[in-house]
Amino acid sequence: MKRKGILIVVSGFSGAGKGTLMKQLVHSYDNYALSVSMTTRKPRPGETEGKEYFFVKKEDFERKIKEEGLIEYASYCDNYYGTPKEYVEKQLEKGKDVILEIEIQGALKVKKQFPTALLLFVMPPSAEELKKRLEGRGTETPEVIEKRLKRAAQEAEGIENYDFIVINDKLDECVQEMHGLITAAHETPARNQELISKMRKELEVFAN
Amino acid sequence: MKRKGILIVVSGFSGAGKGTLMKQLVHSYDNYALSVSMTTRKPRPGETEGKEYFFVKKEDFERKIKEEGLIEYASYCDNYYGTPKEYVEKQLEKGKDVILEIEIQGALKVKKQFPTALLLFVMPPSAEELKKRLEGRGTETPEVIEKRLKRAAQEAEGIENYDFIVINDKLDECVQEMHGLITAAHETPARNQELISKMRKELEVFAN
Repeated sequence: MKRKGILIVVSGFSGAGKGTLMKQLVHSYDNYALSVSMTTRKPRPGETEGKEYFFVKKEDFERKIKEEGLIEYASYCDNYYGTPKEYVEKQLEKGKDVILEIEIQGALKVKKQFPTALLLFVMPPSAEELKKRLEGRGTETPEVIEKRLKRAAQEAEGIENYDFIVINDKLDECVQEMHGLITAAHETPARNQELISKMRKELEVFAN
Repeated sequence: MKRKGILIVVSGFSGAGKGTLMKQLVHSYDNYALSVSMTTRKPRPGETEGKEYFFVKKEDFERKIKEEGLIEYASYCDNYYGTPKEYVEKQLEKGKDVILEIEIQGALKVKKQFPTALLLFVMPPSAEELKKRLEGRGTETPEVIEKRLKRAAQEAEGIENYDFIVINDKLDECVQEMHGLITAAHETPARNQELISKMRKELEVFAN
């Protein structure tokens, strides 16, 4: 029986290392595909169409919304950001596990549309470590860091909505652990309904 | 933070290979302990007190029931069989993952008392393979095999109550997979409430 892909939603505190983790995961195993978001913001130097984002005009984005072509979307600083449904569904059909980075409100919207989506919450090993990492970037002002820590405190309220917590201490170990969680998630009854139905039908034949 | 043990309930069709799997799991990794059941049936030749079972008198078993000293119990062929609570709790406190083989009714009772118990359902890769294995034992009459297949058909109705399905095709791979599922189960929010509370408290301090 062909293994179907799972849609994986990754959330977590800013500074938890989600981006690096996801890239490393896709690089280390061949069953993953990163979802590419669509946005109306302008490409920054070095950004490539279809890699970082699909860059579109406002009208095109709004047409996508009307056509229900987005799994979720939000607007931020006068720009739209969203997840095109078609790309995700194509990859899932191919058997790829599609990874999507998104904050909690988006994650819950995704879960409604894809009840078998897997929700992962990435955290540093401690709040102290989170603060250190944000400070260590050296690019953020103390005000921005404080804002991010406040935001983290809010986000922490939603952790129970997630299937698994991923503690990002050492990158390599964490990538392996994340892969283990996703591998396990493939074995739930909800994600194996075809297999269960088949087994039930066969057993019925024997039992009659 | 000290990792707490999980109570693991293993169910599955007769002939699925649960016993061998569990023994191999305990043998291969050092974080497991097998739960030892209590029974009023007489020891069979070769059976040792405290290994296969704790053998007790009927009065003693009934006193255990009254004292609520059993996680679950059932009677079968005029004998009681049950799971002593004390042994399980001691092992869990030590950080051991305690494995318990039990059928679905018992599994659901355990889940009520231990909401973070992990329920695993072991299946052969197909019904055909199950039939082969039952026949291959060479010890069962066709009538008994038919009875077991009928029973399997009934048990299959309850699979959705389990957290994970374990397909027992090749023993070694299956043991690894089972270990992977249990490792993953340690990372759910419900099994990490202490860690989450700690993180929330620390973040609150930073955010204020």
